[in-house]
Amino acid sequence: MTSNNAASDKAASDKAAGKGPGRRRRPTIHDVAREAGVSRGTVSRVLNGGHYVSPAAADAVNAAIRKTGYVLNRHARSLITGRSGSAAFLLTEPQEKFFEDPNFNVLLRGCTQALAAHDIPLLLMIAGSHEEQRRLVRYVSAGHVDGVLLVSSHTGDPVAERLVTSGIPVVMCGKPMGHTTRLAHVAADDRDGARQMVRHLLATGRRRVATVTGPLDTPGGVERLAGYREVLAEAGLPADETLIAAGDYSRAGGAAATAELLAGRPDLDALFVASDLMAQGALAELARSGRGVPADVAVGGFDDSAAALDSRPQLTTIRQPWDRISAEMVRLLLDQVGGADTSAVILPTDLVVRDSA
Amino acid sequence: MTSNNAASDKAASDKAAGKGPGRRRRPTIHDVAREAGVSRGTVSRVLNGGHYVSPAAADAVNAAIRKTGYVLNRHARSLITGRSGSAAFLLTEPQEKFFEDPNFNVLLRGCTQALAAHDIPLLLMIAGSHEEQRRLVRYVSAGHVDGVLLVSSHTGDPVAERLVTSGIPVVMCGKPMGHTTRLAHVAADDRDGARQMVRHLLATGRRRVATVTGPLDTPGGVERLAGYREVLAEAGLPADETLIAAGDYSRAGGAAATAELLAGRPDLDALFVASDLMAQGALAELARSGRGVPADVAVGGFDDSAAALDSRPQLTTIRQPWDRISAEMVRLLLDQVGGADTSAVILPTDLVVRDSA
Repeated sequence: MTSNNAASDKAASDKAAGKGPGRRRRPTIHDVAREAGVSRGTVSRVLNGGHYVSPAAADAVNAAIRKTGYVLNRHARSLITGRSGSAAFLLTEPQEKFFEDPNFNVLLRGCTQALAAHDIPLLLMIAGSHEEQRRLVRYVSAGHVDGVLLVSSHTGDPVAERLVTSGIPVVMCGKPMGHTTRLAHVAADDRDGARQMVRHLLATGRRRVATVTGPLDTPGGVERLAGYREVLAEAGLPADETLIAAGDYSRAGGAAATAELLAGRPDLDALFVASDLMAQGALAELARSGRGVPADVAVGGFDDSAAALDSRPQLTTIRQPWDRISAEMVRLLLDQVGGADTSAVILPTDLVVRDSA
Repeated sequence: MTSNNAASDKAASDKAAGKGPGRRRRPTIHDVAREAGVSRGTVSRVLNGGHYVSPAAADAVNAAIRKTGYVLNRHARSLITGRSGSAAFLLTEPQEKFFEDPNFNVLLRGCTQALAAHDIPLLLMIAGSHEEQRRLVRYVSAGHVDGVLLVSSHTGDPVAERLVTSGIPVVMCGKPMGHTTRLAHVAADDRDGARQMVRHLLATGRRRVATVTGPLDTPGGVERLAGYREVLAEAGLPADETLIAAGDYSRAGGAAATAELLAGRPDLDALFVASDLMAQGALAELARSGRGVPADVAVGGFDDSAAALDSRPQLTTIRQPWDRISAEMVRLLLDQVGGADTSAVILPTDLVVRDSA
């Protein structure tokens, strides 16, 4: 900061702190350096990210900052820069889903690594309830993070709108649904991925292809079902409603939806399941019903997550390019923080043939 | 404020909002209320937590805060209060461990709920590498959170020291190891839990009781091994080193340590495994070796986590009081934020007998 800014900022801060003339003088960077027994340059480097500063020196400076009260100037610096130097990974799903679905693990690691290249820490926020969402939106809107990577938004999910309204940069994972405002987002081509899988199932000679969809208030749920319908239509096959059951992206939900399909259509010979985790539940249900996979029923998943390799037989599935998705989400977020307009990135998906179909 | 001022204030507000030329004047709460079309009282309620404010009004206020730049005064408020109104759950383990070990899920939920009762949002920070630790300690030290719940610290882990040095309230989960400074912490009675389990194994007539320990640079690793040694000594049995193998709290680590024990002591008739997750690996390894559980080898776990019920046979284990642990961690943290001195809480553990021993 220039000394002018520092001066006006000092006055403003004193005013903000309700301090009149004659009150305790605000500590300066010199006080911190003296207290820490380091050079002003070292203090400055710590304040600006801690590069080229030994942990010991950084500790001494942080301690001096606390002792002198100069830490408050970190907030004052934010008055000028408006930057916290951090980003949030905000998941609007119950905590259980976060731990159960391996996709979140991969996406979180990718985002953490992409931000690490810019020395930006990632804060993970799990907001499954409206109360948690209110608390976390409040925290984010207060300027404690510079941008939000918003994951797993459902139709009518108010969080995206509220973040955009509050003016904080936001990038969504997946196509926004039911949002009036423009939202930056990165998504895999769900519809084309579904098309590839159903075409593959038909190519193996199956004709009674059922599907377990994702939640139909999520883009993955809607788009993958649309791709399924398109290919059946192309093939002149009926996309009979008895061949369609909705899941919730959980293992248990996949098993329940499969049981429902088998009850209504015991003759089905293929199953396109809209996530690998749900496909694990489908495999368990098919085994319970005495059906062999792929002999009696071919099963295709979606994601190519750890669940695909953990399954027996290993899942034929659609690979989502998680590394590219996380890298692009971070790129779009940093662009927005830098003042760029919102934009969208759609990435291709690929068929991975293993043993289940 | 008089209406005279209001006029000039309007112009100033436009400047503050970047609408006009001239030097920016810091916008006031009046500017925000006018911009949002709400009362100053509503703005104040939003600033102080959003209680009794409709989401629509809160959105309008947050938007006005952004537009006028008044959000920056949230930092100024921090100059006075020194509070961000948030707490961090900082895990110094690799992200993979976080997803694999069900204990973290339970502990995180408990802490989230305990803080929710105080309307405080919880930020999850995963700092497995020294770089991630440096970034997150820097963020925390800058005043963006009011306190830290520190989870899974190893001996020599620098994070606890650095946080304490920086003056931020910290409460550790588990007994601090190798720390010179005094650290508030909440721990289960690991040693007594181990004693209960080994006594139970001996009570079922076992005499060659081996153990898979946790990492010996963690309190759970050291204390549970100590309890094991104590009970064998009481019983006049040798705690032969060939009966002891170190694990890493992972499923794979539990399997590897068990294989090592079976190779050296094919005659062992009981196994005390220092975590349920490692015990799952032990059960898999025992099955591979053709041994029945508990017929040939009795297996006792530790934690009473979801892994205990997912195991076949279901695990006889030691229950950690996770609900009380998280509630006490939050209580101690809020006490410290309120100015109280550090303190420690040790909670009892209980034997849960199921099918594996």
